[in-house]
Amino acid sequence: MCGIFGVTDDRNASRLAFIGLFTLQHRGQESAGIVADDGSRLVPYSAMGLVNEIFSKDVLDSLAGHAAIGHIRYSTAGSSDIKNAQPLFFNSALGPLAVAHNGNLTNAARLRADLQRSGAIFQSTADSEIIVHLMARRRGRTLEDTIARNLPLLEGSYSFLFMTPGGMIAVRDPNGFRPLVLGRLGRSHLFSSETCAIDVVGGKTIREIEPGEMVVVRKGAVRSRRFSRPAPLTRCIFEQVYFARPDSVVAGRTVQLTRNEIGAMLAREMKGVKADIVSGVPDSGTAYALGFAGASGIPYQAVFMRNHYTGRSFIQPDQTLREFTAQLKLAPIGGVIEGKSIILIDDSLVRGTTSRKIIASLKRAGARNVHMAIASPAIVSPCYYGIDTPTKEELIANDLTPERIRAYIGADGLHYLSLGSLITACGGGTDRGFCSGCFTGRYPAGRNVKRAK
Amino acid sequence: MCGIFGVTDDRNASRLAFIGLFTLQHRGQESAGIVADDGSRLVPYSAMGLVNEIFSKDVLDSLAGHAAIGHIRYSTAGSSDIKNAQPLFFNSALGPLAVAHNGNLTNAARLRADLQRSGAIFQSTADSEIIVHLMARRRGRTLEDTIARNLPLLEGSYSFLFMTPGGMIAVRDPNGFRPLVLGRLGRSHLFSSETCAIDVVGGKTIREIEPGEMVVVRKGAVRSRRFSRPAPLTRCIFEQVYFARPDSVVAGRTVQLTRNEIGAMLAREMKGVKADIVSGVPDSGTAYALGFAGASGIPYQAVFMRNHYTGRSFIQPDQTLREFTAQLKLAPIGGVIEGKSIILIDDSLVRGTTSRKIIASLKRAGARNVHMAIASPAIVSPCYYGIDTPTKEELIANDLTPERIRAYIGADGLHYLSLGSLITACGGGTDRGFCSGCFTGRYPAGRNVKRAK
Amino acid sequence: MCGIFGVTDDRNASRLAFIGLFTLQHRGQESAGIVADDGSRLVPYSAMGLVNEIFSKDVLDSLAGHAAIGHIRYSTAGSSDIKNAQPLFFNSALGPLAVAHNGNLTNAARLRADLQRSGAIFQSTADSEIIVHLMARRRGRTLEDTIARNLPLLEGSYSFLFMTPGGMIAVRDPNGFRPLVLGRLGRSHLFSSETCAIDVVGGKTIREIEPGEMVVVRKGAVRSRRFSRPAPLTRCIFEQVYFARPDSVVAGRTVQLTRNEIGAMLAREMKGVKADIVSGVPDSGTAYALGFAGASGIPYQAVFMRNHYTGRSFIQPDQTLREFTAQLKLAPIGGVIEGKSIILIDDSLVRGTTSRKIIASLKRAGARNVHMAIASPAIVSPCYYGIDTPTKEELIANDLTPERIRAYIGADGLHYLSLGSLITACGGGTDRGFCSGCFTGRYPAGRNVKRAK
Amino acid sequence: MCGIFGVTDDRNASRLAFIGLFTLQHRGQESAGIVADDGSRLVPYSAMGLVNEIFSKDVLDSLAGHAAIGHIRYSTAGSSDIKNAQPLFFNSALGPLAVAHNGNLTNAARLRADLQRSGAIFQSTADSEIIVHLMARRRGRTLEDTIARNLPLLEGSYSFLFMTPGGMIAVRDPNGFRPLVLGRLGRSHLFSSETCAIDVVGGKTIREIEPGEMVVVRKGAVRSRRFSRPAPLTRCIFEQVYFARPDSVVAGRTVQLTRNEIGAMLAREMKGVKADIVSGVPDSGTAYALGFAGASGIPYQAVFMRNHYTGRSFIQPDQTLREFTAQLKLAPIGGVIEGKSIILIDDSLVRGTTSRKIIASLKRAGARNVHMAIASPAIVSPCYYGIDTPTKEELIANDLTPERIRAYIGADGLHYLSLGSLITACGGGTDRGFCSGCFTGRYPAGRNVKRAK
Repeated sequence: MCGIFGVTDDRNASRLAFIGLFTLQHRGQESAGIVADDGSRLVPYSAMGLVNEIFSKDVLDSLAGHAAIGHIRYSTAGSSDIKNAQPLFFNSALGPLAVAHNGNLTNAARLRADLQRSGAIFQSTADSEIIVHLMARRRGRTLEDTIARNLPLLEGSYSFLFMTPGGMIAVRDPNGFRPLVLGRLGRSHLFSSETCAIDVVGGKTIREIEPGEMVVVRKGAVRSRRFSRPAPLTRCIFEQVYFARPDSVVAGRTVQLTRNEIGAMLAREMKGVKADIVSGVPDSGTAYALGFAGASGIPYQAVFMRNHYTGRSFIQPDQTLREFTAQLKLAPIGGVIEGKSIILIDDSLVRGTTSRKIIASLKRAGARNVHMAIASPAIVSPCYYGIDTPTKEELIANDLTPERIRAYIGADGLHYLSLGSLITACGGGTDRGFCSGCFTGRYPAGRNVKRAK
Repeated sequence: MCGIFGVTDDRNASRLAFIGLFTLQHRGQESAGIVADDGSRLVPYSAMGLVNEIFSKDVLDSLAGHAAIGHIRYSTAGSSDIKNAQPLFFNSALGPLAVAHNGNLTNAARLRADLQRSGAIFQSTADSEIIVHLMARRRGRTLEDTIARNLPLLEGSYSFLFMTPGGMIAVRDPNGFRPLVLGRLGRSHLFSSETCAIDVVGGKTIREIEPGEMVVVRKGAVRSRRFSRPAPLTRCIFEQVYFARPDSVVAGRTVQLTRNEIGAMLAREMKGVKADIVSGVPDSGTAYALGFAGASGIPYQAVFMRNHYTGRSFIQPDQTLREFTAQLKLAPIGGVIEGKSIILIDDSLVRGTTSRKIIASLKRAGARNVHMAIASPAIVSPCYYGIDTPTKEELIANDLTPERIRAYIGADGLHYLSLGSLITACGGGTDRGFCSGCFTGRYPAGRNVKRAK
Repeated sequence: MCGIFGVTDDRNASRLAFIGLFTLQHRGQESAGIVADDGSRLVPYSAMGLVNEIFSKDVLDSLAGHAAIGHIRYSTAGSSDIKNAQPLFFNSALGPLAVAHNGNLTNAARLRADLQRSGAIFQSTADSEIIVHLMARRRGRTLEDTIARNLPLLEGSYSFLFMTPGGMIAVRDPNGFRPLVLGRLGRSHLFSSETCAIDVVGGKTIREIEPGEMVVVRKGAVRSRRFSRPAPLTRCIFEQVYFARPDSVVAGRTVQLTRNEIGAMLAREMKGVKADIVSGVPDSGTAYALGFAGASGIPYQAVFMRNHYTGRSFIQPDQTLREFTAQLKLAPIGGVIEGKSIILIDDSLVRGTTSRKIIASLKRAGARNVHMAIASPAIVSPCYYGIDTPTKEELIANDLTPERIRAYIGADGLHYLSLGSLITACGGGTDRGFCSGCFTGRYPAGRNVKRAK
Repeated sequence: MCGIFGVTDDRNASRLAFIGLFTLQHRGQESAGIVADDGSRLVPYSAMGLVNEIFSKDVLDSLAGHAAIGHIRYSTAGSSDIKNAQPLFFNSALGPLAVAHNGNLTNAARLRADLQRSGAIFQSTADSEIIVHLMARRRGRTLEDTIARNLPLLEGSYSFLFMTPGGMIAVRDPNGFRPLVLGRLGRSHLFSSETCAIDVVGGKTIREIEPGEMVVVRKGAVRSRRFSRPAPLTRCIFEQVYFARPDSVVAGRTVQLTRNEIGAMLAREMKGVKADIVSGVPDSGTAYALGFAGASGIPYQAVFMRNHYTGRSFIQPDQTLREFTAQLKLAPIGGVIEGKSIILIDDSLVRGTTSRKIIASLKRAGARNVHMAIASPAIVSPCYYGIDTPTKEELIANDLTPERIRAYIGADGLHYLSLGSLITACGGGTDRGFCSGCFTGRYPAGRNVKRAK
């Protein structure tokens, strides 16, 4: 996952982009970048690390201008390279152009090979560069035409922010996989992956960008056009389950309330299960557990103390410390665990290794038994639209029955929320409105052979 | 506040001290240090910053030995100086000696002046150096004798760890202001400001060090002696209210449960107050709010999203961003606040400026009304025993009536927990066992003219 | 100016490249980079700064392989950008390809515009990227064919090193503006801008690469082919006057001896001038002064003490210190200057500002009079082939007569070496073998409108 | 060796001290520090590294005041510790006090032990701290009295600068081992280890501080008093041979001229030796070689190219590179060496290992034969007065005859300058005025058992 943020028509554009990215930091911690538009020139700055470490006062001062786009990138194994840090920035026949991308193209490998065969030279291994090469070769009358003409060549998921001196263009793919919202702050227009960033900069959220829509801001005016008929909306349900900040509004409801509701759904599905307390794996599990507690009458209690001083740079110094790592970050609170029967809620269960460690640490701290409740169905297939799930082989639910998973993680019970309940709690109709590829193996926009993140 | 941690008889002593300090990081973020004992030599390392930033694998490798003591120091305005980073390390007629101190001496200024007059040269402005100068001049037959002979000259609060090649000595002042516990891990003895650090390294807490007690570990054996008759126990109640980690055990009970109980006490004292939801100021307020919810039936809901990516280094780049700072760190969750009547709990109210900002941000997010509930009595007088409260003049309750404080912070109601309820919830008898100087102005061990932290 | 170095067939290729670049450091201090070839992959690393600061043991370890090319870049105002650091590295239809370039293309602006018009996207503002875009579009049967086919499109000066997995190709432009030599070390082939780097890695210089020649090393074998008929050789005479290290061999003679000879030529041309001592502006002026002393009988004496601790990072902290800067780096040695008549030799006189400061400092230190002798003719026109001379307007000799220049710099006399003497001393025939564009305004390979460095 | 510099009565005192230390950098590269006096407070700053790296504009801004003293420290194996960086800074009954020291106390170990026995606690292992402890315990009516009363307790060599708010005191030991000069710049008084630093800040040298003299500057006025009868002057001759910058004046003559004269003395002593060229080991050897050339008629030629980009931080990355280290820093200039008979001059010969490497590299580069000429006598005994010579066992001349040394270093001839010639060239009378302990084993002020640097 990644996060993107754009600001127009404000002389503090880069500072607002900085605040926006800082608020979206949960969507990616590998790298961050801002490109500022001073009216005639684009000034880029990106680096590996956290927003707050990268953008000092001096750097922000160097990013003067009235518009800016920013990007934060998720850390994925093996592809850590400053060349992939976004926004990407290009000089070409299109003039100066910056691009920020959230998503994953399923036909990237083929498009890249075709372009290279005809002489294109790539700077990065990012999918996001492909659209610019296409645009540089198939140009329309205006930049908007050029974009609209080339987007239909892309398959997969994408929310893009494009910026040239004097103009910003936001697009969302025809399926609406990845989020993108439009906001306002005074005379300024804002684009953001989530509403929370618009709130924190002091703006108002106007609406979501529609699937297949292109929104253009130029000279203070905003225009909308379609570059594609919308496909059936299939937004990614994991935004509500895991990625989005609790204070963001997704699909019309504050995410924290959606999670409370999911917790209540779990309580209904698990009516027979008895326990002394219900708790969640921090931080996302807490909202589920409070919803569960309200619906079930089982009291909520925090059972883990999370240490927030680990930072991005926390690397266990060596083998000697490896055994401590789990409890360094997540220490069981012995005094509330000992002798208790506990329902523990987590958002999802991917490989099972983390659950296994966490349950073991509760048992060592004296838990009588632990029922694991998962706020989503079993994940049986990878994501091809931008979420960094492991390969099919590493997905524990691809291989094992729920009973064997329960045994593997050492729980006394294991319950997955049903897909129907999840979609209902998230505000969808009968299996409509959401992509459920990872739960069902049915993919609304193809899959790529060589899966990218 | 500061935190101290000691380990004996383990060939990974420095690594265990590192984990201990990391777990005590909430007690101080300015500097951290470890001194290792390799049997014949003491090897010191300290730096400004967080434990996790300071101690790399290479640094820990350089701190070889079978024993170690560590210290983390609280950040206080104006005294940031690496020379004050602890453990302090000295070469003198006592041989190599390291000292870690948590506390504040009320007669420091006088002792320092006397010592200088007789030729002593000080390295730091830390109180902690005074005891070593006293010891270097009034030496006993053994190091223990030397310590025992000089401690009675000190007034105020202190928990000390002393280390020489082959020996470690822990002492706690006769009033027991500051915490210090003894633990074991295999053949190793552990000393820690809090039990949570003993838990995280995998050890067992044995007991508190007694007020006026000296515990000596040498050649694997532990011995106890008294250097003073105990004064009436007056432990600092703010450990339970604010400083201690929720998973630590203080005065025989897990702090999280004590805080739940304090929340319940508040609910009882505020029986008449109606509200839609009860919430807490993160992170410490949450446990109070959950206790309040359980006792009152008013549902708990999180109303703030805390951004944990700020880190120690977060400095608003400039004036332009100052207005955003509060909501950058603590964003109101609009979707659960709008139109609601809210009881909001915080651990204490010192200057009132933070409460004022927080309540304003709830009101901007649409709260109908906000009742502020404080989990402790009004603070009317500074602390002279090691907590970094502001001067009397800056304490809002020193000047204003509760009604005027309520008006200043913009709340629709304000309730302070009574001292009786607080002490009862913390496990004390009638005004016994706790220092209540900051609530009452009555100080059990004198006060210093020039207040230090 | 820049420096390039290549190594084949040695398992310490990157380390040898590091030593080579370190030895060529005088040719550029802005950035340095090495690309290693591990047989199947190219691994690049470059950074701003000095060779010795950039390549730590860890970095060199990461650059494993049996071949490597390296580049150091000259610091020029305004274009400091890590994107321009070389070797450039590309993924394209040509496969992985690294390029290191010393020189300047006079038709770069036109080629770049043409390429962009047909959809090319550039990563950098370096001329050096143009050849790769040309190659990606006009591909031959082999990489050598592709290079040979596209080089004739380039105008200006270039010495290139190309590297692909398993192959290294060196080329020198048909005029031979920039130097490039071939060496051997055991089974390894070496390419270097100067012979001194081949000496320091322990190798033997074989010969210069010929103008218009392409040398290919593959599977341990070296082959030569021509991609162009050689134009009349017009090597840059400033290599001998200023750039090359005294221990390099250029045009068949050790540079230090050439400079002694130039000094002797000056002495002959200045036969009438009387002086107590002759000296040089450190460091390059010393060899001229010693040659002058030998030929004239006027004793040599060092009159300046150069402080070598300034480093690349020396920035006068502020205005207050600006007046000290000259004497901080170059302090006059008062005891040998006072009352003396001095002939002072410098390699060239460009703007005149440095000479003015230096002569003033000699006068302040008590020099009776100072005759300035310049080891080259007056520079009246910029360089278009890679030397960072200022614009025509800033060249003092473009405007002023020698007599007015003498007055401006505050000298009691001023003598420029004649072009004939310079070429003779450098080993050339009558105005043959050297480019004299900067002295005459006659350019052997065109000039670019927008002059680059 | 170390260097010290002091400035009074200038509002840019710290900046002048910075320039002074920068100019004295050749005297020590391990650490540097400045203490500024703002009239009421002393502000210290020191760090490991070079002057130019340590003192940024921000740091200098923080060192505001009208007076400052600075210190640079020589790097010696094993004692690299920021605690030993000077100026040392103390708070004691003497008030704030800063001390900078160049020298070595021969009775340090005994004084330290005595002080510790009576309760003193030391911050550092620096000798320089001892004087302050003595002063804190044996105080006079004024600071000057206190200093004058305690200095006679010290044995060995010392030039000290003391600074308190409003006052600066300079002293030089009764033997005058280490240099210290007084200068003026406008209303400001300057103290410096060498005159070159006074020149570079734009000041005038007034005179040397006399052996046994104390110079006090207070309220713009300078006063002199004696704290001891002067012992016979025994200045260290290695200042002129090796340490001092060529542009400093020592014992009344510019060091470069003294070195020319020493070279001429060598030429006279070696009248029979034939050679094609004479050269020096850079940088100090050059002045000797030029003096030799003038006296002998054998032409001078530079035979080594010194690479100045190594910096303090140059560490050969690993074993693989170790063989290159010598030629990386000092590359033989093959073209002037091949087939030549060479007289090579170095300032001194200590262990012989460097000479051996250098001669081998000349031979590899084709030298027909190499006569080594040393600009000082054989060193047979360590220095106890502040020069970092190795132990007696490591001194090659302690063990071996000149003929065996010649064989060991691989020279075709070896000549040491006679002590008489050296002293004459340095301006002394018959064995008078200089310490010759290292050449003779006769020490004018005792020796310490445990030698310090």
